[in-house]
Amino acid sequence: MGKGRVEAFTDGVVAIIITIMVLELKVPHGEDFSALVPLWSIFFCYVLSFINVGIYWNNLHNMFHAVQRVDGRVLWANLNLLFWLSLMPVTTAFMGENHFAPVPVAVYGTDLALCAIAYTILAAALHRLHGNDTAFAKALGTDRKGKLSLTVYIAAVVLTFVSQWIGVALYVLVAMIWLVPDTRFARVIEK
Amino acid sequence: MGKGRVEAFTDGVVAIIITIMVLELKVPHGEDFSALVPLWSIFFCYVLSFINVGIYWNNLHNMFHAVQRVDGRVLWANLNLLFWLSLMPVTTAFMGENHFAPVPVAVYGTDLALCAIAYTILAAALHRLHGNDTAFAKALGTDRKGKLSLTVYIAAVVLTFVSQWIGVALYVLVAMIWLVPDTRFARVIEK
Amino acid sequence: MGKGRVEAFTDGVVAIIITIMVLELKVPHGEDFSALVPLWSIFFCYVLSFINVGIYWNNLHNMFHAVQRVDGRVLWANLNLLFWLSLMPVTTAFMGENHFAPVPVAVYGTDLALCAIAYTILAAALHRLHGNDTAFAKALGTDRKGKLSLTVYIAAVVLTFVSQWIGVALYVLVAMIWLVPDTRFARVIEK
Amino acid sequence: MGKGRVEAFTDGVVAIIITIMVLELKVPHGEDFSALVPLWSIFFCYVLSFINVGIYWNNLHNMFHAVQRVDGRVLWANLNLLFWLSLMPVTTAFMGENHFAPVPVAVYGTDLALCAIAYTILAAALHRLHGNDTAFAKALGTDRKGKLSLTVYIAAVVLTFVSQWIGVALYVLVAMIWLVPDTRFARVIEK
Repeated sequence: MGKGRVEAFTDGVVAIIITIMVLELKVPHGEDFSALVPLWSIFFCYVLSFINVGIYWNNLHNMFHAVQRVDGRVLWANLNLLFWLSLMPVTTAFMGENHFAPVPVAVYGTDLALCAIAYTILAAALHRLHGNDTAFAKALGTDRKGKLSLTVYIAAVVLTFVSQWIGVALYVLVAMIWLVPDTRFARVIEK
Repeated sequence: MGKGRVEAFTDGVVAIIITIMVLELKVPHGEDFSALVPLWSIFFCYVLSFINVGIYWNNLHNMFHAVQRVDGRVLWANLNLLFWLSLMPVTTAFMGENHFAPVPVAVYGTDLALCAIAYTILAAALHRLHGNDTAFAKALGTDRKGKLSLTVYIAAVVLTFVSQWIGVALYVLVAMIWLVPDTRFARVIEK
Repeated sequence: MGKGRVEAFTDGVVAIIITIMVLELKVPHGEDFSALVPLWSIFFCYVLSFINVGIYWNNLHNMFHAVQRVDGRVLWANLNLLFWLSLMPVTTAFMGENHFAPVPVAVYGTDLALCAIAYTILAAALHRLHGNDTAFAKALGTDRKGKLSLTVYIAAVVLTFVSQWIGVALYVLVAMIWLVPDTRFARVIEK
Repeated sequence: MGKGRVEAFTDGVVAIIITIMVLELKVPHGEDFSALVPLWSIFFCYVLSFINVGIYWNNLHNMFHAVQRVDGRVLWANLNLLFWLSLMPVTTAFMGENHFAPVPVAVYGTDLALCAIAYTILAAALHRLHGNDTAFAKALGTDRKGKLSLTVYIAAVVLTFVSQWIGVALYVLVAMIWLVPDTRFARVIEK
């Protein structure tokens, strides 16, 4: 089964998710700068989620580039990832509207962790289909960054109940690892 | 008439339907776990509809793969299917927000049944265009699974007025028949 | 300038318009059949607009099929059409939520008329680019159906202030002319 | 890395942005013409933003046409532009719902300026990748129109606090420079 339509469908869904998130940014009431101040947490969450979904698009782009074919298992593993990504707009608004209260921060992190797990399952399904000695397996490698991200997300969810700011800081940290791949920090991790 | 743009348009509409459903998942009020509890029915319905739309995407993907060409009749049969699918976000929210009251459950099932009928009409329009001895006709076969699904949907709508949980259980059952095609249960049905 | 991306962009916007219209179908309050009754006008308008946008997709599909190239003028004529089509979800909900009050019915018809004018402008821009003796000019012909539609829309808007049901009936009539191209009625018109 | 999927993703996101803006056009309350009057500012802002996003689509279309390849830096520069464009629906509604109060007008202009800066960064990232003597560099040229637009946006934001109508007039002016490229005015500027 060719990969073309799966790629196109995935790109379509990710493009919609990244764009409809803005519909959760409600139009501020009031017409002076003070109307904008309470929005800072919602805006911050929007930026963070835009970057996170952007990172997934980037990674899916690269992963499917190395793919030769797909099967039913891959289609459903991909839909599973899209499902958890599709919750991003809601979990983002939940965290932003509650000004980083612990439970919403933990829910957001749980969604990120479930996306990371779904991504790992998708990679495994593609690995299984292509075999060990293929370009796909080489491109995927040991996926240290992916495993590290998942570990940090789980730690972040737990530590949120110590202080929610640890959770938020760790989410930002993971985004930066992916976003700034050329800094020394990321290079150390990738070794 | 080439099938390329019909495929792309269909994929686009299905990608939008599956993604905007999340906009019906309203951001919970409150900031602790108890705020999430009343959402269980909405979340359950969202998962069920995500899977159902995913199944349609999958089936449309496979069906159009075997298609050589389309005509005006096929275009409108396809738009008819997209119409009933486009009601999914509303019927899903109607069922979820009313915690599986009988009428919303019956409305949801009626939409599923109308999608199944529309799918059958689309398959018939494509069959008519391609003829009996083509790859398309062979790939379609007798479409037992489709006919069974439609029968179960109609039964579910009726039985909802005995108990709505029978309706919901039957919707889940049909989704599982399509989702888990390799289990023994599905294999028996396909014989 | 190639037509590929304009086609893809147009299909994308039309797919989004036809799908987000459903977001104006608010989830009914209440959980029995009486909750659905007041929705009949909204639902009827949704069906009518779904068909109208579907007709535009169909016509744009066929028109761009005969096109060889596009220029800046065509791009903006196309965006102009997409603009008036993009108002469909709002004018549809305006008509449906007010149960066919005369002003909303006239506003809806005005939008339809503006879409029809924009379509004519787009066809003229493409005609101008391709010349008189091309496949495009032949495929376009005198566009009687388009001109008839526009005339009927304008008549409908005016007659709405006699009775809104005349307006609504005329909108349905135009949709049927396009939707059922093989009936004798449509054949007579096309002569 | 091929440019195909970046183009498709960008077109997808821009198509969604330009279309979901209409969801901020709330259905008017009331059923006569007086219900429409208070909407004039919202409608005017919608038209302005539709044109602005249309201009970006046009420019991105032309820019990517001259591009041979993309890298990680370009992907993120592109996502940065899409981020600021994605705020358009919200800043548009903020300006329209507050009937051109100075702060919303300044916020809208700030978003336009940030889009223009992001566009410049994207062009620079593509320039850097392709080098000085390529078709891309020639097509980009000195980008006088882009630089002029950015300057006018910044001036508009500042002058909004003298009178918001100066700001709005300048936004309209910039849109017209791009929209009507064949008028003498625009030709003078491009010299």
